[in-house]
Amino acid sequence: MGKVCIGVDLGGTFIKFGLLDESRKASEIFQLPTPQDKGIDGVIDQMIAGARQAMSKAGCTNGDVVGVGVGSPGPLSMSKGIVYNSPNIPGMTNVPLKARISAALDLPCSLENAANAAGLGEFLCGAGRQCRHMVLLTLGTGVGGGVIVDGKVLHGAHEIGAELGHTLIVPDGRKCGCGQRGCIEQYCSATFMSTHAAKALESGDRPSSLRQVLQADGTLTSKDINEHRKAGDAFALEVWDEMCRYLAMGCVTYSRILDPDRIVLAGGMAAAGDDLLAPVVKHYNQMHWKMTEPRTEIALATLGNAAGVIGAAGVAWQEFGS
Amino acid sequence: MGKVCIGVDLGGTFIKFGLLDESRKASEIFQLPTPQDKGIDGVIDQMIAGARQAMSKAGCTNGDVVGVGVGSPGPLSMSKGIVYNSPNIPGMTNVPLKARISAALDLPCSLENAANAAGLGEFLCGAGRQCRHMVLLTLGTGVGGGVIVDGKVLHGAHEIGAELGHTLIVPDGRKCGCGQRGCIEQYCSATFMSTHAAKALESGDRPSSLRQVLQADGTLTSKDINEHRKAGDAFALEVWDEMCRYLAMGCVTYSRILDPDRIVLAGGMAAAGDDLLAPVVKHYNQMHWKMTEPRTEIALATLGNAAGVIGAAGVAWQEFGS
Repeated sequence: MGKVCIGVDLGGTFIKFGLLDESRKASEIFQLPTPQDKGIDGVIDQMIAGARQAMSKAGCTNGDVVGVGVGSPGPLSMSKGIVYNSPNIPGMTNVPLKARISAALDLPCSLENAANAAGLGEFLCGAGRQCRHMVLLTLGTGVGGGVIVDGKVLHGAHEIGAELGHTLIVPDGRKCGCGQRGCIEQYCSATFMSTHAAKALESGDRPSSLRQVLQADGTLTSKDINEHRKAGDAFALEVWDEMCRYLAMGCVTYSRILDPDRIVLAGGMAAAGDDLLAPVVKHYNQMHWKMTEPRTEIALATLGNAAGVIGAAGVAWQEFGS
Repeated sequence: MGKVCIGVDLGGTFIKFGLLDESRKASEIFQLPTPQDKGIDGVIDQMIAGARQAMSKAGCTNGDVVGVGVGSPGPLSMSKGIVYNSPNIPGMTNVPLKARISAALDLPCSLENAANAAGLGEFLCGAGRQCRHMVLLTLGTGVGGGVIVDGKVLHGAHEIGAELGHTLIVPDGRKCGCGQRGCIEQYCSATFMSTHAAKALESGDRPSSLRQVLQADGTLTSKDINEHRKAGDAFALEVWDEMCRYLAMGCVTYSRILDPDRIVLAGGMAAAGDDLLAPVVKHYNQMHWKMTEPRTEIALATLGNAAGVIGAAGVAWQEFGS
């Protein structure tokens, strides 16, 4: 496949690997478990082993590899190549990950945070392929963000930009784990929407078919809420629609500030497909200013879990490709 | 002064002119009235006359000039060089301003919107001098914005980025002239703060020393509100503090999305100096997440009305300088 970059997407449970060639064609993506009992050395050994496996699967040697890109949960410094802390990865405290991977593989390495890497992945090979400016929103446990300005990942002055989940959308709103109040994450992540819906049911006597689910499972999921909404439950409909409205409000703000070609919705909640996209677009069009028609498109991500690996390899291409 | 770029800052009442050399040293800035009765040709003739005057004041010929930058109220297209519409400039509808200025002066010309130009001006020569990433908020009749990412003005995919005044901060909030609801402009511009304060006084019986001003003048200004606040009026204090809180909320959002080195406050309201800055910084520090200490600095603009001319010349330097 000619020259390639290796992408490594580090997660708490699995590490994913793949190659990306110059024409943005990705190899098959595979994963290895994240070792839980050998500290950071075990994790790094597994990253090295997987990277070598990716090379040998494709019949590559070091001479074919332009660089290795690693996407990792943060906080971290891309420029220093250090992961400060990543609670779900054993031993990941102040680890010079870039230098260690680079030394072990004898290849140049770049480090990027996982949300930004996923954004670049969708930008290069997925829903953002035709864009120059793109925003990725990952709607899962929290709300992650990646921002591409003129083809490059936006990092900001202190490498803490694109934290889109912590955009403030409600004055003195719901308290967020980050210490702020009214973060969009509290209204639009799968987890927080479900948690707040469960609380509302528990503290009130609103009739809803979701009560049985809550009693049986002890919790609600975003899938439960969407399914009961589709079955006609009024409370579920309200909760889902409110989430979509807040998401649209965020999208209007991202359009006004960043004016991207596309805002791409990813993560667990994007599995709802058009059930998510259609109401978000409807609210977006209603809320959007009247100075111009809405020009930023809102779309679903297309790469699923592969976005992180592809984007990590893409970061290495941007840094080390000519 | 060596090679220079000419900056032209077009406004509804005055056109400002000046030169910027390669070391970011600006010449004296001067202004000519915007002709009101000769249509667009009269306006363009005045722009040409002023540009020539700037050159002759400095003893420059065309050979010394790298380019001309024009900052204009919009909407406009920087890339096409066309101003679509500018209600306060006579005849300014679909005018190919860049081509006309360039042809008349026989010099390369760039076009930028006035708010972005002011942002670049502060970035190059004012409060953003040491920054790589900067946000400018102009608090006047409305709230204007300019965003610098990695030393360049952010335009976005459709050249409508950095419209920071239309960041949504209140769900279903105050109706904005742009057609949205809850834009920060409705809470933090000098005009809208004063208008809403006047309405609140008229529709209620809240005691306030501002009532006399309102009865005498028919309106309130942001200066009135600040002065009565300092004299101890509780209503004025509340209005001013609320404006500062909303502004801080916006600044938190800009920090999360863009992570700039500095957010610079400019425009009429910035004349309040520390009366504005201190409460905004206080609220910002309180609202800011606890994941890192606040790193983005909030500061007052330093160039005043010269920012637009200097930034317009800076745009030409960025486009035509080597």
